[in-house]
Amino acid sequence: MIKVGILGSTGYAGAELTRLLASHPEVEIEFLDSRSYEDKEYLSIYPNLNKFLSQKCVRVDVESDNYLKSIDIMFCALPHGLSQRAVHRGLSLDIGVVDLSADFRLTDPQTYEEWYKTPHQGVEDLKKAVYGLCEIYRDKIKGSQLVANPGCYPTSIILALYPLLKENLVDLGTIIIDSKSGVSGAGRNLSDIALYGQCNENVRAYGIGSHRHTPEIEQEISFASNQQVTVQFTPHLIPMTRGILSTIYFKNRKHVSEVELEEIYAGYYGKEYFIRSLERGSLPQTKSVSGSNFCEIGFKVDERTGHIVLVSAIDNLIKGAAGQAVQNMNIMMGYEESLGLKQTPIWP
Amino acid sequence: MIKVGILGSTGYAGAELTRLLASHPEVEIEFLDSRSYEDKEYLSIYPNLNKFLSQKCVRVDVESDNYLKSIDIMFCALPHGLSQRAVHRGLSLDIGVVDLSADFRLTDPQTYEEWYKTPHQGVEDLKKAVYGLCEIYRDKIKGSQLVANPGCYPTSIILALYPLLKENLVDLGTIIIDSKSGVSGAGRNLSDIALYGQCNENVRAYGIGSHRHTPEIEQEISFASNQQVTVQFTPHLIPMTRGILSTIYFKNRKHVSEVELEEIYAGYYGKEYFIRSLERGSLPQTKSVSGSNFCEIGFKVDERTGHIVLVSAIDNLIKGAAGQAVQNMNIMMGYEESLGLKQTPIWP
Amino acid sequence: MIKVGILGSTGYAGAELTRLLASHPEVEIEFLDSRSYEDKEYLSIYPNLNKFLSQKCVRVDVESDNYLKSIDIMFCALPHGLSQRAVHRGLSLDIGVVDLSADFRLTDPQTYEEWYKTPHQGVEDLKKAVYGLCEIYRDKIKGSQLVANPGCYPTSIILALYPLLKENLVDLGTIIIDSKSGVSGAGRNLSDIALYGQCNENVRAYGIGSHRHTPEIEQEISFASNQQVTVQFTPHLIPMTRGILSTIYFKNRKHVSEVELEEIYAGYYGKEYFIRSLERGSLPQTKSVSGSNFCEIGFKVDERTGHIVLVSAIDNLIKGAAGQAVQNMNIMMGYEESLGLKQTPIWP
Amino acid sequence: MIKVGILGSTGYAGAELTRLLASHPEVEIEFLDSRSYEDKEYLSIYPNLNKFLSQKCVRVDVESDNYLKSIDIMFCALPHGLSQRAVHRGLSLDIGVVDLSADFRLTDPQTYEEWYKTPHQGVEDLKKAVYGLCEIYRDKIKGSQLVANPGCYPTSIILALYPLLKENLVDLGTIIIDSKSGVSGAGRNLSDIALYGQCNENVRAYGIGSHRHTPEIEQEISFASNQQVTVQFTPHLIPMTRGILSTIYFKNRKHVSEVELEEIYAGYYGKEYFIRSLERGSLPQTKSVSGSNFCEIGFKVDERTGHIVLVSAIDNLIKGAAGQAVQNMNIMMGYEESLGLKQTPIWP
Repeated sequence: MIKVGILGSTGYAGAELTRLLASHPEVEIEFLDSRSYEDKEYLSIYPNLNKFLSQKCVRVDVESDNYLKSIDIMFCALPHGLSQRAVHRGLSLDIGVVDLSADFRLTDPQTYEEWYKTPHQGVEDLKKAVYGLCEIYRDKIKGSQLVANPGCYPTSIILALYPLLKENLVDLGTIIIDSKSGVSGAGRNLSDIALYGQCNENVRAYGIGSHRHTPEIEQEISFASNQQVTVQFTPHLIPMTRGILSTIYFKNRKHVSEVELEEIYAGYYGKEYFIRSLERGSLPQTKSVSGSNFCEIGFKVDERTGHIVLVSAIDNLIKGAAGQAVQNMNIMMGYEESLGLKQTPIWP
Repeated sequence: MIKVGILGSTGYAGAELTRLLASHPEVEIEFLDSRSYEDKEYLSIYPNLNKFLSQKCVRVDVESDNYLKSIDIMFCALPHGLSQRAVHRGLSLDIGVVDLSADFRLTDPQTYEEWYKTPHQGVEDLKKAVYGLCEIYRDKIKGSQLVANPGCYPTSIILALYPLLKENLVDLGTIIIDSKSGVSGAGRNLSDIALYGQCNENVRAYGIGSHRHTPEIEQEISFASNQQVTVQFTPHLIPMTRGILSTIYFKNRKHVSEVELEEIYAGYYGKEYFIRSLERGSLPQTKSVSGSNFCEIGFKVDERTGHIVLVSAIDNLIKGAAGQAVQNMNIMMGYEESLGLKQTPIWP
Repeated sequence: MIKVGILGSTGYAGAELTRLLASHPEVEIEFLDSRSYEDKEYLSIYPNLNKFLSQKCVRVDVESDNYLKSIDIMFCALPHGLSQRAVHRGLSLDIGVVDLSADFRLTDPQTYEEWYKTPHQGVEDLKKAVYGLCEIYRDKIKGSQLVANPGCYPTSIILALYPLLKENLVDLGTIIIDSKSGVSGAGRNLSDIALYGQCNENVRAYGIGSHRHTPEIEQEISFASNQQVTVQFTPHLIPMTRGILSTIYFKNRKHVSEVELEEIYAGYYGKEYFIRSLERGSLPQTKSVSGSNFCEIGFKVDERTGHIVLVSAIDNLIKGAAGQAVQNMNIMMGYEESLGLKQTPIWP
Repeated sequence: MIKVGILGSTGYAGAELTRLLASHPEVEIEFLDSRSYEDKEYLSIYPNLNKFLSQKCVRVDVESDNYLKSIDIMFCALPHGLSQRAVHRGLSLDIGVVDLSADFRLTDPQTYEEWYKTPHQGVEDLKKAVYGLCEIYRDKIKGSQLVANPGCYPTSIILALYPLLKENLVDLGTIIIDSKSGVSGAGRNLSDIALYGQCNENVRAYGIGSHRHTPEIEQEISFASNQQVTVQFTPHLIPMTRGILSTIYFKNRKHVSEVELEEIYAGYYGKEYFIRSLERGSLPQTKSVSGSNFCEIGFKVDERTGHIVLVSAIDNLIKGAAGQAVQNMNIMMGYEESLGLKQTPIWP
């Protein structure tokens, strides 16, 4: 039994973390930090957790407070920019840190500054960070004190591409990624864009060529392929609450067949509990993974065009955020990786 | 470890049963019966269960087949009318039966015939049936071989009303019930009414004064109040997948206060895991119980009008169908009542 | 051709007014007032109106500015409380005023103060106001300078009840009203309650016994029945953008039949373009009126219970707000009542 | 005033056609054909049209019946394959025909057979057909007796690409098209795929590389560019009723800038009422055109990647089907092109 604290527990990622950890058999939640709801009953904000916890939100001052001293793992679900001080404090106290913000995902502080328009304040800490895409960096995560939990879009994209990159099957100059996300990805912040009246019966693209998950995707594709790769990435907002579907296009460099793809995915992911690589002919749907930590991956080889088209689906708040964070904690602590994460996806 | 079989496993109630049972620690699923998908992989219909089971649908002939002989509990999720033969066969084989249809809920076969327009074919079996509203009939369920799993609307309504009926606080001639249901209540049958284009951005009332859950509601209200009671019940279909919210109106017979109501509910349900009776001032929402077996109950005493207004919320496919069926099985088998049913509601 | 101005043009009611007026053949929009978007292009907020107008939002100071002097009709879509000064200024300039707020709907300023918790600042102006339920108060509206546009819930409720009240068929002590509204009724304000993640896949009751449309409903029922009437009114928020469905219950005072009801509605509304009173056996759906100024009314006589159940449907932003406001303007100006309001409802 | 008949009037495209034509100032609807609802009141299926028409559905036998003889224009909204006989009969009676099926869109009957797996039965008639993309083929449509109304996806895609193809700015070997459609595109047929429970909170890709709109898109791109072009086209189903958003990717062949793109679109479409080419920096949303015949087009030049990304939005049932069919009729009859089609898009 370990003790954990959650910074930023009332945003949607923080709330999902709280929901998952409240049922985790090896975890005790020490505090639920919130700026917006200090001193409020957590259940007054998230009544779904009635019977699972009964705590008030507290406002943690990371520097002066003793809150952090009493815990084994700190989850940091603060907006990016705010994470750096909190993470630094956590590291200095020698506790494990899983950071859900973007602040420790990019290994190069220059790239961070370029895309986030502000210099990185924790360059030394950054060196200690491991990118927490569990299926790929499991070994590094095991020994790490600071895990940078991947973004939702990058998780859905890199897991699908990784085996084909390693096998050198991707024409790297041709990658185009078109992602569709539910509205919860925009968080619980009050923003015109997240109002029901603006989102329902509507679909739109945003941040074409400029979304901040782009350098994260490119970094990991570049690592996997040992080359500097640029991709075209376009996220879309669609009228549903949860889920990301990514459709990934590229030239089939070696004219690989669907049978071969099936084998490659089986080789890489056959033993991965949280990855479902589908048989040829089947394609992922977000409903198939909704409410779970699974990532579903399908493919189509198009002989007419010479492309491979990959499709992947995740629940953006679970495998794309809180679930993967718990998976990272499990790895860090030496627990069974799926502990507390075996929820069955809900259909319909 | 017991063996169970599911008749009608590919409708939405059957599928939810399959989903829940696939993760139940004491259950092994022996067969998944389906008329529509005989011989098809279950995962081709419900891909969400990938990694949880890998069976083909079979078509069970209840009279001649040996399927039923190998199981301890038979779940019957067939359309009403079709249950009676299957249940009879199950009883004669001495296995436990949980029937999710309406066929064994009404104790009076006359009432059945009146509302279902067909004579009941299993009047003898009917005498053995216990109405499976767990929190109220727990003791009878324990020793029973045949449990009639309650309808979704009645579950949401009777649980809310029961304590106030027992305490004689309800002016029985004034009960009006207005329920709002998600579309999954209409099942997976191909019907114009359940098409996305017809349901989305639409709300409508249906079966005013004639919905077949009416006699079931009236039967249980009459039992609880020791009087023959008639109610006005109107269900509505609203554009969401899961959930029922019932709003229940009646005259406050004894001018009870909200403080007193809080105490009464605490007295009846304080120890019930699956019932959340809310404090005064809080009201249920379906999202608060979505994906779980909880029933949430709130109330408002309106001094201006002399009414009490109750509001209750359930997930129609779980507490309103499959979850309660598993809860009934747990009681029948002497398991902890919440075994396999501790899913945390999902928000957002 | 007349000139109109809209105060509060960027809320959802104001925007719908702008949309309708932009296509009205006898109207020229002089100004679009907005506090939040002063000096912004209106199309940057409502891109749907591209090709229909091209104006910037202005911020009108009702007292000092000349904006009001140049117009014939002022539409006031400000939050209640803010209307009173604007309306006063409009009246003193001798222009016609249609006020969409609640400020001039209640004839008794005491009742206003009781429900809105603030004294009414324009008691003299209040005497000039006509309640703008067009089908009922048409004659008064014709000669009026100030029309108080009805609330969305009251419109759906009073139109359904009115003929039966006039015919003395309603047992007045038994009226219970259960309304279901789309989320646009909450406006475009940034509020946690209107976020997609909070509303989608969710239904909840709110303001039981305390919603501010209650006195408005009671006032009009009392006028129509010549008695002081109290009603139980409960609004619900359901996951759709537009539409209100109201289900209205009461005792059938004179045991009237469905055939008779059909005739009564035909008598009252047979010549009303915007009212569709359905034949017995048919019930309204919000989709049937979505995008239009129609109000659809259906009924059920329940012999078992002695109740009549009425169901009515409107588009909350059109007949429940902006459409009725335009209808009021048409009446005030002597135009054909349906001018600019003949949009066909959209299905699916 | 002309007389029209609609074959297949109760599918979603046929119903939208009926809705639009019922308010068209120059049109009288002679008959509404339906196989599924023969002899039923049209309003019992589409109650939204109450007060707009009052006809029964008839079943038209195109060969023997006299129905076709009494009309000026026949709209054919039958499933593909069934259109050919009806169109042939219409042509032989010398009436104008607008065919909404896919049967007369592909100029090459070989291509038709290849993608539709059945030989074309009306090769002679095919030669008379004009592809009814109004903004591009207006002159040919004017003199034509048979117009093949374009598919929904192709309309959204070709209108966006056309000016850049004509200006030779597209690297033709690199075109990737990712479209997102509302569920009404699947029609009103009873199909598991269109059930609310399957579509809501779900997104999926379908028909990757094999959707039948692919050859239609390629044909028109090839015509516009004078080369045989192959494209990668992937449609997706998202949880909304109406709307298509297409995101189109290709290499920027001549390093054109956003300023230049703005000018090019203004040049091609500046005078087109139904096309809104957005300024740089703005992107289309489906809500912006919902309920209207508009096509909204935006673009992004990505300097990092060398791509141009186009985004276009239409209401799939209007500009993508029925609205364009009426626009085609207007052109054929010499009416103002926007007659009966000036509906303002609805927001929210």
